Amino acid sequence: MNAQTPIQHEHSPRLPQAIAELQALLHDRLSTVESVLAQHGRDESWHNPELPDAVAFPNNTAEVSAIAKICSAHKIPMIPFGAGSSVEGALIPTMGGIVVSTLNMNQVLAVHPDNFDCVVQPGLSRKALNQYLKGTGLFFPIDPGADASIGGMTATRASGTNAMRYGTMAEVVRGLEVVLADGRIIRTGSRARKSSAGYDLTHLFIGHEGTLGLVTEIILRLSPLPESATAATCRFPSLESAVQTSVALMQAGIPVARIELLDELMVDAVNQYSKMDMPLLPHLFFEFQGSPSRTKEDALLVQDLCQEFGGDEFQWTSSPEEMTQLWKARHNCAYACMAYRRPRKLMTTDVCVPLNNLTECILSSRADAEAQGITAPILGHVGDGNFHMVLLVDPDNADEVQRAEAVNTRLIERAIACGGTSTGEHGVGLGKRAYMQTEHGEALNVMRSIKQTLDPHNLLNPGKVLPD
Amino acid sequence: MNAQTPIQHEHSPRLPQAIAELQALLHDRLSTVESVLAQHGRDESWHNPELPDAVAFPNNTAEVSAIAKICSAHKIPMIPFGAGSSVEGALIPTMGGIVVSTLNMNQVLAVHPDNFDCVVQPGLSRKALNQYLKGTGLFFPIDPGADASIGGMTATRASGTNAMRYGTMAEVVRGLEVVLADGRIIRTGSRARKSSAGYDLTHLFIGHEGTLGLVTEIILRLSPLPESATAATCRFPSLESAVQTSVALMQAGIPVARIELLDELMVDAVNQYSKMDMPLLPHLFFEFQGSPSRTKEDALLVQDLCQEFGGDEFQWTSSPEEMTQLWKARHNCAYACMAYRRPRKLMTTDVCVPLNNLTECILSSRADAEAQGITAPILGHVGDGNFHMVLLVDPDNADEVQRAEAVNTRLIERAIACGGTSTGEHGVGLGKRAYMQTEHGEALNVMRSIKQTLDPHNLLNPGKVLPD
Repeated sequence: MNAQTPIQHEHSPRLPQAIAELQALLHDRLSTVESVLAQHGRDESWHNPELPDAVAFPNNTAEVSAIAKICSAHKIPMIPFGAGSSVEGALIPTMGGIVVSTLNMNQVLAVHPDNFDCVVQPGLSRKALNQYLKGTGLFFPIDPGADASIGGMTATRASGTNAMRYGTMAEVVRGLEVVLADGRIIRTGSRARKSSAGYDLTHLFIGHEGTLGLVTEIILRLSPLPESATAATCRFPSLESAVQTSVALMQAGIPVARIELLDELMVDAVNQYSKMDMPLLPHLFFEFQGSPSRTKEDALLVQDLCQEFGGDEFQWTSSPEEMTQLWKARHNCAYACMAYRRPRKLMTTDVCVPLNNLTECILSSRADAEAQGITAPILGHVGDGNFHMVLLVDPDNADEVQRAEAVNTRLIERAIACGGTSTGEHGVGLGKRAYMQTEHGEALNVMRSIKQTLDPHNLLNPGKVLPD
Repeated sequence: MNAQTPIQHEHSPRLPQAIAELQALLHDRLSTVESVLAQHGRDESWHNPELPDAVAFPNNTAEVSAIAKICSAHKIPMIPFGAGSSVEGALIPTMGGIVVSTLNMNQVLAVHPDNFDCVVQPGLSRKALNQYLKGTGLFFPIDPGADASIGGMTATRASGTNAMRYGTMAEVVRGLEVVLADGRIIRTGSRARKSSAGYDLTHLFIGHEGTLGLVTEIILRLSPLPESATAATCRFPSLESAVQTSVALMQAGIPVARIELLDELMVDAVNQYSKMDMPLLPHLFFEFQGSPSRTKEDALLVQDLCQEFGGDEFQWTSSPEEMTQLWKARHNCAYACMAYRRPRKLMTTDVCVPLNNLTECILSSRADAEAQGITAPILGHVGDGNFHMVLLVDPDNADEVQRAEAVNTRLIERAIACGGTSTGEHGVGLGKRAYMQTEHGEALNVMRSIKQTLDPHNLLNPGKVLPD
């Protein structure tokens, strides 16, 4: 969490009336207490916190709709807030306004095991959902590092270590209930596995980062738990050999459920944070899923291929406890980085590139960070062509921040130039807005006109995603 | 193809000037020849053909952009046209205008085997793409019955028999180049496997049916050819037992690449059209893919499960020639229906429902068609919960058409009521417009406002998708 001093905004003259109406609606579920404001004005990014004018805790869709009507009538910004785990400043109320917390909207509304779906409220966390699903034989596979809310994951089109096998939020969200800026309530998609019935509004709201509406219900595809799973780690003599191995594996089409890359700096950070003792070398973490015989067959093929590229023998991890520990350590990489070489903060990069450009992109970017004297551990969902170089910066050292930003910019330009994207899974928030023109060109104007149509007064999470 | 007499529209007073400008641009690649107009004013549906004012054959994106500018300036409708295989009237120029044919834009622009993608023009057909990919080890899996154009398949969010394993157009289109109504050219998406960079315009144009822009380039995900495959057919004593088997198979999570249902009427039509001799009983067609040992293991599990539900022994189909013949017969089901019990035409239904509602939905719908005396063979992508009841109607028999429409309406209402959709893969076109209000409610107004934003003068394939 961020310890910087939050910026306080000037209040809109119409705010007191809006607050009065919201209080009449929500009573003590509208808060203007300083500590509550501070808690809802920051996220896990390096961006400076800023204070909202109030925080609303609605209990249901009707209340969210009523909040939207009040805020629209008085032209007060609305910023949805889930777990607060954005790493791009997506939640920071840069124009003040009302934070709409999903804290009280965290229920599983229905599970339909025979259609592999469930219906949930946006405030539910991914871990809470999986806890709820225990015993059904199903699970929800999307796993960003944080225990994010399903609403937040929908808003950022999140993914994680399972995307290669199970897809991202773009593939698992089947439908939504959304409150529009003016309070209208719409439903998109359905419980059917596919549809050709009109414009795909579901995908328009997946990745909208709260700028097009307030999501109040989500229909999710679930997956059957694998019959068995085994994990392994493999160390490599160089970063290059580790990345080349992962690309070759993908191109060989061997079914691997997860391939995660950690460079030697990230291994060091993880060793310290998660009390592990991996040798300080680049590693690939693997998971194989399926029947025990198939899993073994796949894993041995992969081990052979790793060795062709100079990889060491696999360190096998087959007990559920060890596997949980391994993936927990992987999921805690961001926290490991936060604790590494304090008092630095994370400037996270998140490019995703075509697989054939991955090795070059990772190696150039690391060389650039080294040349600029920036400590920058690397981890990657390399099967997707997506990696994070975590630039560790001291926010009080303007020169260091500037050098890190330059490294970040060059990395993004490199990714876009080879047919990739500035952000594979974290979203745009505040941090990637400056790159949207380069990435989208004229299409950015189409995004702007859609925003204008759905939110004509720019009240929904204003100042995010689209550059001014 | 349709033999009904095409409707001729009154020309816009501004048409001559638009035609003159289009001729200056395209020379003999603009046609107003009667037979060419007639060819581009119909599709494979039961809807009456109507004549466009002219047909344009652009060679490249710049020409498409110039056409859009001319049509916009003179307020003349533009209707994109690929293979002409719509079964919902999506291509019929109900307000006249210029048909923009993709005939000359049928090239593969790039194949990137090491990132599993290719870039194609919209006029390329799915079979031509797969012919081009021979020798790369990759293929393009989406397979509607017709040899549709990739542009048309993008426009309708098409799928086919492979959707269960490989997804639909919604999953395989990674990016687009689109000419907007005013001639602006935008690019959406990228060659990266995932992205969180702003609004998902790619999915907005997948399924737009030519009403939001003219697609000029498509980035497609390709799949590795399976190591081996085997197919089998299994006959069942009743429709109910066949559907229940397919639902049970899905719920058991056994990896089957394809599960297709044909009822006894469809089997009869296929036998006649494709010169086969299947017994006149409901059938499931299966395909299993993977290594030979896995494929066999999966297939035997499925055979056991079929027998539990009363299915007969599998009829195995392992030679490539036999498999090609089997799936060709399946893909030709629509043509088999057209030839069955002439002079009737196809009123195709296309609902997709949650798997747990599939059996009930199919059985009620068949009972309804029988009660109304309508011959209605059934085929289904049952693994997706998507099936087609093909209502065979004589367009000159008003009473029969009316009874069939009533059956169609009740089927769609049944599907929507249980959480499904009116169209799983054919699109809305003219045929499903009337159901959009029931299916989408208030969300339909959001679709309308997006259409208004991107096409303010309603020139792009007007009169489709959205009801008046």
